[in-house]
Amino acid sequence: MTGTRGTLYGVGLGPGDAELMSVKADRLIRQARHVAYFRKAGNAGRARATVAPMLAGDVQEFPMEYPVTTEIPLSDPRYNELLSAFYEDCAAHIRTLVEAGEDVIVPCEGDPFFYGSFMHLFTRLKDLIPVEVVPAITGMSAAWTASGAPITWGDDVLSVVMGTLDREQMVAAMQAADALVVMKVGRNLPKVRAALEASGKSDRAVVVQYASLPDQSVTPLSEIDGDSLPYFSIILVHGQGRRP
Amino acid sequence: MTGTRGTLYGVGLGPGDAELMSVKADRLIRQARHVAYFRKAGNAGRARATVAPMLAGDVQEFPMEYPVTTEIPLSDPRYNELLSAFYEDCAAHIRTLVEAGEDVIVPCEGDPFFYGSFMHLFTRLKDLIPVEVVPAITGMSAAWTASGAPITWGDDVLSVVMGTLDREQMVAAMQAADALVVMKVGRNLPKVRAALEASGKSDRAVVVQYASLPDQSVTPLSEIDGDSLPYFSIILVHGQGRRP
Ligand SMILES: C[S@@+](CC[C@H](N)C(=O)[O-])C[C@H]1O[C@@H](n2cnc3c(N)ncnc32)[C@H](O)[C@@H]1O
Ligand SMILES: C[S@@+](CC[C@H](N)C(=O)[O-])C[C@H]1O[C@@H](n2cnc3c(N)ncnc32)[C@H](O)[C@@H]1O
Repeated sequence: MTGTRGTLYGVGLGPGDAELMSVKADRLIRQARHVAYFRKAGNAGRARATVAPMLAGDVQEFPMEYPVTTEIPLSDPRYNELLSAFYEDCAAHIRTLVEAGEDVIVPCEGDPFFYGSFMHLFTRLKDLIPVEVVPAITGMSAAWTASGAPITWGDDVLSVVMGTLDREQMVAAMQAADALVVMKVGRNLPKVRAALEASGKSDRAVVVQYASLPDQSVTPLSEIDGDSLPYFSIILVHGQGRRP
Repeated sequence: MTGTRGTLYGVGLGPGDAELMSVKADRLIRQARHVAYFRKAGNAGRARATVAPMLAGDVQEFPMEYPVTTEIPLSDPRYNELLSAFYEDCAAHIRTLVEAGEDVIVPCEGDPFFYGSFMHLFTRLKDLIPVEVVPAITGMSAAWTASGAPITWGDDVLSVVMGTLDREQMVAAMQAADALVVMKVGRNLPKVRAALEASGKSDRAVVVQYASLPDQSVTPLSEIDGDSLPYFSIILVHGQGRRP
């Protein structure tokens, strides 16, 4: 290719509040000519909703609709095959645009390199076209800010655990940490709750839903009924380390 | 007090690049009338340097100079006493300003509630005056962005470990995690290196110095000589979890 190529930008949006976007993300999104975003089929898409008021009137949009999310279990080999083919298709489309000289902005929930979907485009494209990643405020930073208490003190070890992890490994990780962030809880709530109990940390666990968004809530885990949480939920256990 | 009180704002600046500040932090700092920041005696202060070009000409500045940093060992009881008295003094001064109706901005490196000094003002003032915290991009997000690779995949457990932790606990925490962030390395480099070796993760460890700043560098740990790293350094071990 010649020097006429564009760049693919993976732009972190932060936790949802538009004022918590970085100055750089704000600028890139307002100037964007091509925007590509992930969404669940049939949904408007959270990343799209966040950037909607900022987009130029003549922006070109490319929604990337997940073929599966929770309908097929993670353990089913078809899950990986379907997702992989999907990411290949998205990457091919973006590559065509960038090689034609266009900059393509992919707005990402939270920080792109922290358990984000953009990572799957990144690995497929990083050696083929110019890619730039803009870091962002993570959902967990907004969650502990919402909780009204620092997450870590002194030498506290903080661990980030996914609700999709095996129960046994989850308990081990929880036991080894002082402070905890549990993401992707959703329908894994019963397993997460049991693991927090087994590791002696459930009494201190707090659920933060929709951190930084208008429907934000902070609730002790002990007061949460039912077997699931919304997708945009994080469970926190605050550290109690050294403090002068 | 009456309704004429101001508010104390703990404002995260992010990793250092001014464009990575949030839109909200950018606005609060440009409008600030009172700015209070931590710094080491004799130093200009990193937070001050970041915000300097943004401050109004008539802003009132209140530098908070640490009485000790690394001169007295953490284990010495005088360390905690000195620091505690220092935070009390700073809190008292800020409280006076806020009760007189002024807003006071404390610019913080990275995210205020993530191993930040602001937490010590926050705990002393949160029940006495209005306090608002603005989350920010952490140093570690800038570090893994600089490294050019996502930090976590699938169900990876990410642990954040301080270089000041005991060696034995450090090894245990490192063994229990898939992906690692080691902060406050500094003169603890030999201990951190040994712990990474003991946990079988030193081959994959990468040192990121001054993430997002002009002097940013990314170097495999195996290529680093000497017994210390600059204060603004983070060691990363990337996760290798499931990816479609
Ligand atoms: C695929 S991960 C993406 C994480 C994202 N890249 C980040 O930096 O926060 C999705 C999970 O992030 C968490 N999350 C992200 N933003 C959140 C918010 N504003 N409030 C609550 N949870 C959030 C939820 O646990 C959700 O299940
Ligand atoms: C007292 S902690 C403060 C962390 C900060 N609140 C944050 O959110 O990143 C200081 C440590 O943060 C790390 N750090 C913060 N920003 C950094 C950057 N831009 N580059 C490298 N290290 C950084 C270093 O390991 C440093 O020793």
